[in-house]
Amino acid sequence: MLEDKNQERTSLEQLGEFGLIDHLTRHFTLKQQSTVKGIGDDAAVLDFKGKKTVLTTDLLIEGVHFDLSYMPLKHLGYKAVMVNLSDVYAMNATPTQLTVSIAVSNRFPLEALEELYAGIQLACTTYGVDLVGGDTTSSQTGMLISVTALGVALKENIVYRSAAKPNDLLVVSGDLGGAYMGLQVLEREKEVFKVNPGNQPDLEPYSYIVERQLKPEARKDVIELLKQLEVRPTSMIDISDGLSSEILHLCKHSEVGCNLFEDKIPLDPTVISACEEFKIDSTLVALSGGEDYELLFTIDQGDFPKIKGNPNLTVIGHMTEANESAHLVTRDGSKIPLTAQGWNSFQTK
Amino acid sequence: MLEDKNQERTSLEQLGEFGLIDHLTRHFTLKQQSTVKGIGDDAAVLDFKGKKTVLTTDLLIEGVHFDLSYMPLKHLGYKAVMVNLSDVYAMNATPTQLTVSIAVSNRFPLEALEELYAGIQLACTTYGVDLVGGDTTSSQTGMLISVTALGVALKENIVYRSAAKPNDLLVVSGDLGGAYMGLQVLEREKEVFKVNPGNQPDLEPYSYIVERQLKPEARKDVIELLKQLEVRPTSMIDISDGLSSEILHLCKHSEVGCNLFEDKIPLDPTVISACEEFKIDSTLVALSGGEDYELLFTIDQGDFPKIKGNPNLTVIGHMTEANESAHLVTRDGSKIPLTAQGWNSFQTK
Repeated sequence: MLEDKNQERTSLEQLGEFGLIDHLTRHFTLKQQSTVKGIGDDAAVLDFKGKKTVLTTDLLIEGVHFDLSYMPLKHLGYKAVMVNLSDVYAMNATPTQLTVSIAVSNRFPLEALEELYAGIQLACTTYGVDLVGGDTTSSQTGMLISVTALGVALKENIVYRSAAKPNDLLVVSGDLGGAYMGLQVLEREKEVFKVNPGNQPDLEPYSYIVERQLKPEARKDVIELLKQLEVRPTSMIDISDGLSSEILHLCKHSEVGCNLFEDKIPLDPTVISACEEFKIDSTLVALSGGEDYELLFTIDQGDFPKIKGNPNLTVIGHMTEANESAHLVTRDGSKIPLTAQGWNSFQTK
Repeated sequence: MLEDKNQERTSLEQLGEFGLIDHLTRHFTLKQQSTVKGIGDDAAVLDFKGKKTVLTTDLLIEGVHFDLSYMPLKHLGYKAVMVNLSDVYAMNATPTQLTVSIAVSNRFPLEALEELYAGIQLACTTYGVDLVGGDTTSSQTGMLISVTALGVALKENIVYRSAAKPNDLLVVSGDLGGAYMGLQVLEREKEVFKVNPGNQPDLEPYSYIVERQLKPEARKDVIELLKQLEVRPTSMIDISDGLSSEILHLCKHSEVGCNLFEDKIPLDPTVISACEEFKIDSTLVALSGGEDYELLFTIDQGDFPKIKGNPNLTVIGHMTEANESAHLVTRDGSKIPLTAQGWNSFQTK
């Protein structure tokens, strides 16, 4: 049917993940009074009297987002929830409910799905979230997981991507690049295992970055910390696709530019040594690696004293006027335009 | 990894779709005050001050739930939304927002996804629902669609599966079996096309049942009708898996039995003639066919005069004490226990 069409075709690669959503939904209009914010942020915001409800959803596909040869199913279940909670926190909201839908082929026994749900349950318990729905079905090939998360927040506390101002400071939680380098280690061990199945890999030196890949945590603690410090970010996003991609989202939605300072990017020593071992530039890994699930946000300069010296937060740059656009200021002081090299599932890697 | 386990395995077929959900979620507990109803009904119910929010989600997989060789993508998008709205209506709620996530392989050009979203948009416009989020990603093989729908209702209007009483009347909207027989016609034409691609099928005599399969409508009109008639069902469910399976859900959740009368089951003449042509028993098709997306509900006997003679509603039986269990009363007066032969995606057909 599709093959009969003589129309000119646009490949999905050309648009990329974000362009595709923008393109496909450009003619949709919002009609519900209860819809405060639809597509275009980490989560949709709905007004159901009093407190706002936030809603977010993510799809994880075997062979695209995860590889079961080194991803234990319990970790996968946990991570599938974290990915969504991270989006809720990025709205400065509190996650409340989840739905989880899965499709699996018959090659998975029940016990495998129990492992998966044990991870989901651990995530629900740890973060105080209720699983309230879902769907299970068969797939013809691999496994896929679709999670939807709801959260609540007072209207005045919700932080969008769109309210950063020039001169605001750009702040990131934790450190970057670990999840990507953990993936490199796991991929290498998989190749070694193929050649020599008897080999016992020593992952001990890489335990931090492997855990960043296999068991990320959503930064609930950072949201609580900001509340304690009485800092309300002017804009916020979670880092799922890499720092540069997320900075560009903030710049686009807030209509500002940005100077990101290379020497400020927080890197764990394990990431630095792994980058040396794999001969990869650590800045590139932080900019484009993705899956760190840290929070990236902007604050008014007046709030700087409140966060100064906090080991969980690092100022990595500042926002500028829109016409200055987004740049990386390298260690030698040169300015390079930031480009989105974030993870794109439609790219053939 | 999975293959290394020596534990005894339970195959997914053994549990089936509903058993699997029950099994996997049996250790989950609900903690949020805002969670009124979690897993176990057509939709979860959340209390966000004043009006209740209902939330439902469904996953559609190529090769399992749809076949793109005869399912136009626009219809598929429309149907993916209907499947979810039907669940919201089955709670006696009003759908308000949707999220749609899709995974597609690179064989789909952008124009194909535009078709899909055109169908989603038509559904949103027709039913007054906002698309407020989603995710798009690549898949290694076919297409899959994950839809989550939210709806609102006043607390006192929400209808669960669990409050049917003995002697309540069992009522169904529309007619049954059409979607399944439409599928049979489409499958036959696909086989004919394989042998003789030049053959132009004449689907005109089957247009009603083919449309029931390809473009089902959620019964918003029935919910509005019941409100007009001032009939509040005591329990309600939508018919996605076949009449017998849905009746058994009502019986289980309400702890009642049921007598279903074969001669009362509403069948369109096209369904009857297609059943004769395909040599399939029309009662079996209504009981087990599925995908009709009609509403099945129970009403107090005192409400019978309000619905009597309404062409959209048919009384097909009545509820009994639990110990009488669920039976089909055949045309010759014999009683056969109802068994769930609804559609099960884990069965290998």
